[in-house]
Amino acid sequence: MPTQFLNIIDILGTISFAVSGAFLAMGKKLDPFGVLVLSFVTAIGGGTLRDIMIGHLPVSWLRNETATIVIFSSAIVTMFFGRFLKHLTTTLFLFDALGLGVFTLIGIEMAIQLQFSLGVCIALGTITACFGGVLRDVLLNEVPLLFRKEIYALACITGGLVYFLLMKIKLDADLSKILCILLIFTIRVLAVRYKLSLPQFYNSTSKK
Amino acid sequence: MPTQFLNIIDILGTISFAVSGAFLAMGKKLDPFGVLVLSFVTAIGGGTLRDIMIGHLPVSWLRNETATIVIFSSAIVTMFFGRFLKHLTTTLFLFDALGLGVFTLIGIEMAIQLQFSLGVCIALGTITACFGGVLRDVLLNEVPLLFRKEIYALACITGGLVYFLLMKIKLDADLSKILCILLIFTIRVLAVRYKLSLPQFYNSTSKK
Amino acid sequence: MPTQFLNIIDILGTISFAVSGAFLAMGKKLDPFGVLVLSFVTAIGGGTLRDIMIGHLPVSWLRNETATIVIFSSAIVTMFFGRFLKHLTTTLFLFDALGLGVFTLIGIEMAIQLQFSLGVCIALGTITACFGGVLRDVLLNEVPLLFRKEIYALACITGGLVYFLLMKIKLDADLSKILCILLIFTIRVLAVRYKLSLPQFYNSTSKK
Repeated sequence: MPTQFLNIIDILGTISFAVSGAFLAMGKKLDPFGVLVLSFVTAIGGGTLRDIMIGHLPVSWLRNETATIVIFSSAIVTMFFGRFLKHLTTTLFLFDALGLGVFTLIGIEMAIQLQFSLGVCIALGTITACFGGVLRDVLLNEVPLLFRKEIYALACITGGLVYFLLMKIKLDADLSKILCILLIFTIRVLAVRYKLSLPQFYNSTSKK
Repeated sequence: MPTQFLNIIDILGTISFAVSGAFLAMGKKLDPFGVLVLSFVTAIGGGTLRDIMIGHLPVSWLRNETATIVIFSSAIVTMFFGRFLKHLTTTLFLFDALGLGVFTLIGIEMAIQLQFSLGVCIALGTITACFGGVLRDVLLNEVPLLFRKEIYALACITGGLVYFLLMKIKLDADLSKILCILLIFTIRVLAVRYKLSLPQFYNSTSKK
Repeated sequence: MPTQFLNIIDILGTISFAVSGAFLAMGKKLDPFGVLVLSFVTAIGGGTLRDIMIGHLPVSWLRNETATIVIFSSAIVTMFFGRFLKHLTTTLFLFDALGLGVFTLIGIEMAIQLQFSLGVCIALGTITACFGGVLRDVLLNEVPLLFRKEIYALACITGGLVYFLLMKIKLDADLSKILCILLIFTIRVLAVRYKLSLPQFYNSTSKK
């Protein structure tokens, strides 16, 4: 049952990542093909980078028709009904925050199977959740938002650390996962709600 | 015989991709080493990304001396005789359009061997043909041309779909390939000739 | 003994790469997480790209706790003591030049084990040493410095060629390595000292 529950959140997260990619691409005046690619990259970029680095090849999405169809549909719906979707900003944001949690835990779980060290597991979870957005920003020719603003990766890292803590005290694995997803979700939502962000460095060390 | 024929087009396509990368790099005032790297990335980037995602490692160009020598020579010739090559713009464009077709079919063929679904096969064909240009644009710090202008990827996708159609009606495989390469070539040439492009989205959804 | 010696230079090189990534990221006003990621990417990007292309997966740093801890510490120290580190610019530059040499030889050695051709071995050595910086620049949304200025890759390529020459005349392998590292180091230091660089192309071939 929790698996099925996680699958549903996984799909909701994929949809919201795809929609966010499509919106940004449309805002940058890309053509429909560009919008489609940016949707894909945003939704599967993090998992793809993880799969490549751990050697889990072919990368997951090549064998995962559900994800492909979900992303494709999300992009097309966004292109046609973008104006309507904009009224759903809050809903999409909540899906996105849930997706962030689920993708982090999926990445951590895969890394644990391969017996990586704790730090690497958390890094791979964070990469799974966050690097689709980084690739999206690189393709759109911007300094990745992830590195500049808002608590995003920090939520994943915190959630990951707590997951290892809960496993140490031998809490049920499924329950631990759900708790950590909710934790990541909550941190993310609170950060956006209260405009929390890490302090930035000021321009004292470089000419540019 | 068709194999040999395809090999020749493959090399012509590689040359024109390498030359296009070198020209763009020179226009951006890179130094000779930068021009060389951009030539390589443009010519082998798409195939390399495909190889990595499907797990065909080491990636092809590491074992393919012909390609390496062809690209290296193309870049050097472009650096020394760029002014002369500019009179060949049309010829190079025609090679490029042929290369687009050949690379698409090479990618699709590899994906079929690995028994991916139809959609993934066409995606991998398109990636093979188009993502060298995307990587080139990312390295040159521009929003990839592919996402903004001209029918490029659409030609690959159409050609890929027709290839599966021709296989369904059991046309001879080599003949099908040549027909689809010509189809991609024709779409591409017509698109440039008549300045066809997909409509772009206008800046209604984002601040930037 | 030489192995231990090389390990120490490897670590010094990693530190200086990580510090350089952190400095650039701080100059671009990234937040602490962004600084951390840029440190990592600069230090392990080249080796990661090499590992992926040759199929040496999972990529090295996932199994290399020393590197991870060294980079992490370097980034944090840079964030807190950046002002102090700036007085060490020369020291860091010397480490960086040494690192360039070591990383090149590490990449070449791995490529030789896999019996790639001479050109590919040197290319993989150069990628190991230089592409962390390229990825760093791409993430910071700049045209990679490597392609525009200073003798950097050329030092690696020259060192690599000389290494094959020394092996041909059957010089002791460890001695050859040390000589080539020193050669790369010297070329790099002289290039910066005397502001040598390859000529750039001027804007005669493109509108942009």
